[in-house]
Amino acid sequence: MQSDKADSNRGRCMVEKQWKKFLALIGEVRDLAAVLELLEWDMQVNLPENAAAGRGSQIETLSGIHHEKATSKALGNLLDTLERASFPPGSFEQALLRRAKRDYDRERLIPAALVRELGAAGSAAFGAWLKAREEQDFSVFAPHLERLLELKRSQAALYRPAGHLLDPLLDDYEEALTVAELDPLFGVLRREQAAIVRKAVERGLEDDSFLRRKFPAAKQLKLAEFVARRIGYDFRRGRIDQAEHPFTTSFGLSDVRITTKVFPQLPLSCLFSTIHEAGHAIYEQGIDPSFDRTPLADGASLAFHESQSRLWENQVGRSLPFWRWLYPVMQKRFGGELGGIPLETFLRAVNRVEPSLIRIEADEATYNLHIILRYELEKELIEGSLSTSELPEAWNAKMEEYLGVIPPNDRLGVLQDVHWTSGGFGYFPTYALGNLIAAQIWELAHQAIPELEEEIAAGKFDHFREYLRANIHRYGAKLPPRQLLKQLTGSETPDPRPFLAYLEKKFA
Amino acid sequence: MQSDKADSNRGRCMVEKQWKKFLALIGEVRDLAAVLELLEWDMQVNLPENAAAGRGSQIETLSGIHHEKATSKALGNLLDTLERASFPPGSFEQALLRRAKRDYDRERLIPAALVRELGAAGSAAFGAWLKAREEQDFSVFAPHLERLLELKRSQAALYRPAGHLLDPLLDDYEEALTVAELDPLFGVLRREQAAIVRKAVERGLEDDSFLRRKFPAAKQLKLAEFVARRIGYDFRRGRIDQAEHPFTTSFGLSDVRITTKVFPQLPLSCLFSTIHEAGHAIYEQGIDPSFDRTPLADGASLAFHESQSRLWENQVGRSLPFWRWLYPVMQKRFGGELGGIPLETFLRAVNRVEPSLIRIEADEATYNLHIILRYELEKELIEGSLSTSELPEAWNAKMEEYLGVIPPNDRLGVLQDVHWTSGGFGYFPTYALGNLIAAQIWELAHQAIPELEEEIAAGKFDHFREYLRANIHRYGAKLPPRQLLKQLTGSETPDPRPFLAYLEKKFA
Repeated sequence: MQSDKADSNRGRCMVEKQWKKFLALIGEVRDLAAVLELLEWDMQVNLPENAAAGRGSQIETLSGIHHEKATSKALGNLLDTLERASFPPGSFEQALLRRAKRDYDRERLIPAALVRELGAAGSAAFGAWLKAREEQDFSVFAPHLERLLELKRSQAALYRPAGHLLDPLLDDYEEALTVAELDPLFGVLRREQAAIVRKAVERGLEDDSFLRRKFPAAKQLKLAEFVARRIGYDFRRGRIDQAEHPFTTSFGLSDVRITTKVFPQLPLSCLFSTIHEAGHAIYEQGIDPSFDRTPLADGASLAFHESQSRLWENQVGRSLPFWRWLYPVMQKRFGGELGGIPLETFLRAVNRVEPSLIRIEADEATYNLHIILRYELEKELIEGSLSTSELPEAWNAKMEEYLGVIPPNDRLGVLQDVHWTSGGFGYFPTYALGNLIAAQIWELAHQAIPELEEEIAAGKFDHFREYLRANIHRYGAKLPPRQLLKQLTGSETPDPRPFLAYLEKKFA
Repeated sequence: MQSDKADSNRGRCMVEKQWKKFLALIGEVRDLAAVLELLEWDMQVNLPENAAAGRGSQIETLSGIHHEKATSKALGNLLDTLERASFPPGSFEQALLRRAKRDYDRERLIPAALVRELGAAGSAAFGAWLKAREEQDFSVFAPHLERLLELKRSQAALYRPAGHLLDPLLDDYEEALTVAELDPLFGVLRREQAAIVRKAVERGLEDDSFLRRKFPAAKQLKLAEFVARRIGYDFRRGRIDQAEHPFTTSFGLSDVRITTKVFPQLPLSCLFSTIHEAGHAIYEQGIDPSFDRTPLADGASLAFHESQSRLWENQVGRSLPFWRWLYPVMQKRFGGELGGIPLETFLRAVNRVEPSLIRIEADEATYNLHIILRYELEKELIEGSLSTSELPEAWNAKMEEYLGVIPPNDRLGVLQDVHWTSGGFGYFPTYALGNLIAAQIWELAHQAIPELEEEIAAGKFDHFREYLRANIHRYGAKLPPRQLLKQLTGSETPDPRPFLAYLEKKFA
């Protein structure tokens, strides 16, 4: 008995020591990842014109060191030992080990040579993509896309997928997502959304000419900052800067930064992109602080992340209650231009539905159709059932079929997105899933907070934000996304009905 | 013969391979150092209020990895092998090996435990220093200073110095600098500068009340940027931001950033601190681009660096020709306030001599006296002939003796500088040496460019900057500072006479 107890004490002590080592090591890996994020953020926000090459080599050096540490034998041994300690399900320790193991295994699986080849092919493809866009000539980009497809096919093969070759790539961005799940889901969405769009288009375009005058950049930025602060973005743990392509980045739970962009002729672009990024950032800032410097200090998944940015941008930011609150503020700040436009007219302009060529400018009603088109094409590309030379034609045909518009050139068509230039096949679907989950959460929040719309109309967002924090944010990446979704909605799979109902109500 | 040739080819090929490895390795070390600089820069310029702890751990992790790589056996072996290859004196390879070896040996010499202890003692001392300043009570800081002195004494002892215990610490900041050299040099300076100051003070203070009104911050920043650009700071390879304490930092030769600070009531502070930092940055931007990502992409020494910032700030920026050019511009930009003040009056205000309490606000005539005071005290402190408890009194006594003013409290006296809080004993003298070298170079430049003052009065700085680039900047750290000084002036030691003659002419 005595000796058993001593043994068990010794065992516990050993585990504690190993656990401390493990935390220190993943803390370092996390620091390196944060520093890589800083190098990237600074590149987008501050980099002097001639400094790109130097920054490139800094990123390369740091990436190498990060990869080395993240795949070290030492970390592998600690993971093995600690897994045997069987921490209770639901505990921080068990969740952290699960996530760390997943990261470790995935990072180990891909040989360093393939990582390098992907990096090199991506750089070359990015350059070719820029050139192809400039020359509006897809054929400049085609061989690079071909090469990236080859490399990603071999990466996917490493996972020995039981189903579709795209599955492991989908899983890279959204744990456990498969073609088998997406095909029927996107089938429904495509059919029903197209119908909603058709109806909206038949009613004719809303007038938004009063939004196409010049709104001073400084005032736009101030308004965006004001709104970000009001919805709950914490400036003591973040900041807003300007960048060519707005994004959110985190160097840890106390330093979550967003960027925005101002178009003087498009007063709502800066505002909505700031709300969108603030939605991402509020998610990260709401994660349990004790997860900091671990892989749990992250969103549950890309779809969940996108659900948060979309919720704030669309369900909140494009709603009548929101503009009941903000429109008078905006009228006052911007003066003359808006004085004569009634709220209803303004709101219809904000929610104008117009099938268009560019995904990132698409409205709520048409957005998913852009995603579905990309998903269907990348599935065929990775299978090899569609060749890169056939891609532009296939793109244009689908644009006509789903949206009724045909790109006049490849720049406004197949060359518009940067994702494929780094081999990001399988990324796009997370955007559409984010839209679906946002609508599900929006319904749940209404049930939990009956006075939600009144509060929003009064410029009060605390209840809603705290609801999100309590039910989603604080978990960070502790729960796998499926489990978090089940805990929220009762089902492991996203349900398209709340989203379709939301669209139907708003646009029909 | 055949076989000899084959052998020698094989040998050359071996050396080339080792050299490539060596360049790759020091390139990585350099990247890591650059990333540490970025972490620091971002901390000073951008950091959100609550992000300090997270940034601290990122810096700690990176510092550890940097130290590991910079002291790795692999690097040591490469240095040993390549030293035997005996590259010709004066070659890039020989210079780089010399510098890399010096860095390597110094970094290896100090045990990791001592580095950690110094880091911890420094953090604690910094906190205590802030508190001591707030409470105007030196005794809060004293025990921390004591601890730092102890640690630095043991660090100095590792070098087994033949002369004074401060020598190795001086050498850390300025290669080959010794107490034996500084004592007589500073003796002369102290005596002669004090006499010049006395004479200036006897003439009475110049009126500068017209400079103590409000000058809009945005206009000040614009003027500073305008001047920085004009004297040759290259914005394609740098940028200006605002920070609490202006500084220059380099992430490589194509990314040399400066910071500045605006005091609305002190219109010249932002301008002169920007010119000062631009002087540092122009030095770095002028280094031979082929030195990038090596330890030669650096100034020759701290004193040389300071000589460049001082030259632009003082010899150029506080001269009559400079203000012949800039004063009309400034009058036009700032309007009313300055319209009625003649150039001569303005210039006398710019060059006002006033013995004062704070080093960083000191004028050209009194500045070195602040330095000499610190040097003399830190010498006694490190020797142990002055105890920390006696320090404030000794400080005040010397202030009275050299400058005729007595600090009313420790905050305005012994607690004013941050340097000692991190154990930076031996750093201050480089500032004074910078002043001396600046005056030497100023004389030489006049000989090389007879029309120098006319050009400056026309707002033309290209000849002067190119002179500096050709004779100093481009060498980077290729030549040891003594050798560079000898190449410039004929002597290995700084000569105080040009500086004293410059002061005499300007202030007497």
